[in-house]
Amino acid sequence: MSKNEVVNRQIVLNARPVGMPTAEDFRLDRSEVPQPADGQVLLRTLYLSLDPYMRGRMSDRPSYAPAVELNAVMVGGTVSRVEVSRHPNFQAGELVLSENGWQDYTLSDGSGLAKLGSKITHPSYALSILGMPGFTAYHGLLTIGQPKPGETVVVASASGAVGSVVGQIAKLKGCRIVGIASGEDKCRYVVETLGFDVCIDRRDPAFAEKLAAACPKGIDVYFENVGGAVFDAVLPLLNIGARIPVCGIIAHYNDTALPPGPNRLSLLTYAILTKRLKMQGFIIMDHYGAEHANFFREMSGWIGEGKVTIREDIVDDLEQAPAALIGLLAGENFGKVVVRVAEH
Amino acid sequence: MSKNEVVNRQIVLNARPVGMPTAEDFRLDRSEVPQPADGQVLLRTLYLSLDPYMRGRMSDRPSYAPAVELNAVMVGGTVSRVEVSRHPNFQAGELVLSENGWQDYTLSDGSGLAKLGSKITHPSYALSILGMPGFTAYHGLLTIGQPKPGETVVVASASGAVGSVVGQIAKLKGCRIVGIASGEDKCRYVVETLGFDVCIDRRDPAFAEKLAAACPKGIDVYFENVGGAVFDAVLPLLNIGARIPVCGIIAHYNDTALPPGPNRLSLLTYAILTKRLKMQGFIIMDHYGAEHANFFREMSGWIGEGKVTIREDIVDDLEQAPAALIGLLAGENFGKVVVRVAEH
Repeated sequence: MSKNEVVNRQIVLNARPVGMPTAEDFRLDRSEVPQPADGQVLLRTLYLSLDPYMRGRMSDRPSYAPAVELNAVMVGGTVSRVEVSRHPNFQAGELVLSENGWQDYTLSDGSGLAKLGSKITHPSYALSILGMPGFTAYHGLLTIGQPKPGETVVVASASGAVGSVVGQIAKLKGCRIVGIASGEDKCRYVVETLGFDVCIDRRDPAFAEKLAAACPKGIDVYFENVGGAVFDAVLPLLNIGARIPVCGIIAHYNDTALPPGPNRLSLLTYAILTKRLKMQGFIIMDHYGAEHANFFREMSGWIGEGKVTIREDIVDDLEQAPAALIGLLAGENFGKVVVRVAEH
Repeated sequence: MSKNEVVNRQIVLNARPVGMPTAEDFRLDRSEVPQPADGQVLLRTLYLSLDPYMRGRMSDRPSYAPAVELNAVMVGGTVSRVEVSRHPNFQAGELVLSENGWQDYTLSDGSGLAKLGSKITHPSYALSILGMPGFTAYHGLLTIGQPKPGETVVVASASGAVGSVVGQIAKLKGCRIVGIASGEDKCRYVVETLGFDVCIDRRDPAFAEKLAAACPKGIDVYFENVGGAVFDAVLPLLNIGARIPVCGIIAHYNDTALPPGPNRLSLLTYAILTKRLKMQGFIIMDHYGAEHANFFREMSGWIGEGKVTIREDIVDDLEQAPAALIGLLAGENFGKVVVRVAEH
């Protein structure tokens, strides 16, 4: 389908996945571009963020946010351009942060839209380092993790949208940073470009031993965004008083049943007790407010000074979004995944 | 053996238990009563505290405190009388809080001794509601659990040394208190004497359903001191933002292997994430200092005003201590277990 046809392409949830989603769980629908009424704007999606939480929304398992309904448009954060405005506060051509979901066009009454201003040079950053993933890293690491200079911080998915920012902030705070990533290319990037002290390949058969060797003083903060075998390797290395912000457990999002035994739950509780661990989950949408303003100001400063960087894994065309999300869940992306839906 | 013989009875660790300790894991030794040198006092044990943590010290599994050596005297908090003083700061006849362990007599150079004063009416309270178990309840509930008026607080081992105090403090803070205890007698005591709103018998075949019915608004604070099946029943009832101070997991102290599968660890991590739980372990010995003074003042006030109460399960004779600890680990005690080693 040509991008020039003036239709609204929508990717909807066709079926609830069992385990890893497949292409058949999504469906491409076409509809007319809607017309704004008085008080509304028509938004054109430019960039769509793809994030691991989307896997949760595809299931009707109880979670922190309602599931996407079958045949409804997939949800997602977007950078959009106001195409037509019948709203006094918006002008055609303005860029806004919005929640269009996986579609070309949508209407909005202006609520929840954040203007990005005319000076923005990388609009997609509003979906990555200056957006939800960046704020997730900032809040989880600083407010829950509370790293102190000289401490050892371990972060998995170290080349990803959240992990890459966690490590760079921790480095700015004077910590030793140990990343975990999949494959040599990502590990090299994490050390050479992002400035982590070391990065361990989680596919290495000697992963657990190498992680232990990389943490000679143990682990003080483990930023949890994967779960599974990585967490199993981290647990015995945690120091007394370690903090574990729980941001995600991507290793388990496609689980269709609990893993086989033995039941290791009491092992975790025993470690929490004897090591006085603090393990705390958070959902970043709870924390927008005063803390977000601090984040935005501080992170903008770091970006301006060249102290932090992010790699975006840009996918062209909305119709590639299902394959890109499946790849993200399998760890195939390299950096923050953003779908370029239309030219900026 | 008569109590009048002037020997020092010592109960030592005879063997490291496998699973639940047995009488054979302890041994009664007799030795001469030691003579204090200049700068020392001879202490006579009056009351010995028995606590679940002692099971941990009998094993050489890594934990937060060193294991008791084989053939060494079992450790334990005690109320003692100064029998002979060759120390300028102590006089014969004074009562002190000490760590004599499971023996009649020991020497001390005065370090770590806390004088109980001449006005104390219940010296054994220094081992229970005004001592380590009371402070454990106070710190875990208030500093980690942070209950707010109207919230639901669930505490297991509700008739025990710690749980009974947790519930009574939470009640004073305006919470709804749901206790869990073993058997009808304990449950009746927890409600009628301690003033909990309700208490569920954990041996009831419909335990999980009854717990859910007792928590119609979910659970905001779960004071964890048991683990096992109780925790499994609590987990689905936890509210968003619930706090779980982890004080102990007595259900697992005698585990010789992990329980059979499936592996429920990711179920807990998933709940921590989606419900934004805070789960935090603590060891009360880390927290003596400013907070302890607040505890002692506030708890003494509550006791004086009759707002809190405690039931002590007094066991006569040091030689009964092994059986009493085994009973405590099996949940057979009714209240705080204190061994009366000698008459006050």
